[in-house]
Amino acid sequence: MYGYAMNKEDLQARLARIAGQVGGLQKMIDEDKYCIDILTQLNATTAALKAVGIGILDTHVRHCVREGIERGEGDAKIEELVATVARFVGR
Amino acid sequence: MYGYAMNKEDLQARLARIAGQVGGLQKMIDEDKYCIDILTQLNATTAALKAVGIGILDTHVRHCVREGIERGEGDAKIEELVATVARFVGR
Amino acid sequence: MYGYAMNKEDLQARLARIAGQVGGLQKMIDEDKYCIDILTQLNATTAALKAVGIGILDTHVRHCVREGIERGEGDAKIEELVATVARFVGR
Amino acid sequence: MYGYAMNKEDLQARLARIAGQVGGLQKMIDEDKYCIDILTQLNATTAALKAVGIGILDTHVRHCVREGIERGEGDAKIEELVATVARFVGR
Repeated sequence: MYGYAMNKEDLQARLARIAGQVGGLQKMIDEDKYCIDILTQLNATTAALKAVGIGILDTHVRHCVREGIERGEGDAKIEELVATVARFVGR
Repeated sequence: MYGYAMNKEDLQARLARIAGQVGGLQKMIDEDKYCIDILTQLNATTAALKAVGIGILDTHVRHCVREGIERGEGDAKIEELVATVARFVGR
Repeated sequence: MYGYAMNKEDLQARLARIAGQVGGLQKMIDEDKYCIDILTQLNATTAALKAVGIGILDTHVRHCVREGIERGEGDAKIEELVATVARFVGR
Repeated sequence: MYGYAMNKEDLQARLARIAGQVGGLQKMIDEDKYCIDILTQLNATTAALKAVGIGILDTHVRHCVREGIERGEGDAKIEELVATVARFVGR
């Protein structure tokens, strides 16, 4: 099966889990947990957010960008896509 | 003033804002907002989490690592620190 | 003008500069320069490489992905694109 | 054995390999290789640079930061360290 596709339910399930991870971080700070353990949890949260980002990007290319290109209006969509990936990558 | 230091209140205020950002993402998905706008919000959330990570790292080095070194037990603390930064950087 | 497009000459000019930056890093290590200065140079080199990556991605979407979609064979191209961005983003 | 420590020879060997990777990228662009293959090679190069960065960071903490702390001058070193990690992480 294709690895990055996420439907609305997948995205919501992942975001609910991410909300739980952020709650976990708040609790860890509150309870003065060990910094390294907090950073490990924070890293996992960032990774989960990036995965959601890739899922949304996949949907975007598969629908909006593709349809833009099929209508002969691909340029603006591609430019927007690349600019978004650039920000995502930290450029 | 020193730029990366965050006390417990700072960290909690930032995490509360991040929880709000995740809630915003859930709402945007729910309302079928435009993918690129969702990705922009997701990027901002990831950036906010990373900033919290740097704040926690700062506290960790300033206290745990420093004290470990002062007690002559720096090696394990430094190794743990570098391993954590490596995972943070994506290595 | 569009910000991410790079032609072959642009890419080669940037890669030549990156090769020079790597040479600079070798010299800095050789001369035992201050670690933080080396890391600053290393960061600049990584950023320059990422910018080249975005330029190549732009060309790829603008040509290969677009043409795949126009020929009705977009799925494989899109899947490959998203997988590449995922690895680029560190997912 | 400790995973991130690199001596001068290690660093130079890795940078020589990275220089070779950049040369490979120049050749691939020159020969109009497939974009995705170029991006894969570019990703490997960025990863190799980051690994060198972690090695240099390790040396820096293990020597400069530790000695700064032992001399009672840790604050400036720690501040500089955290700022460097922040830039490395993309914050």
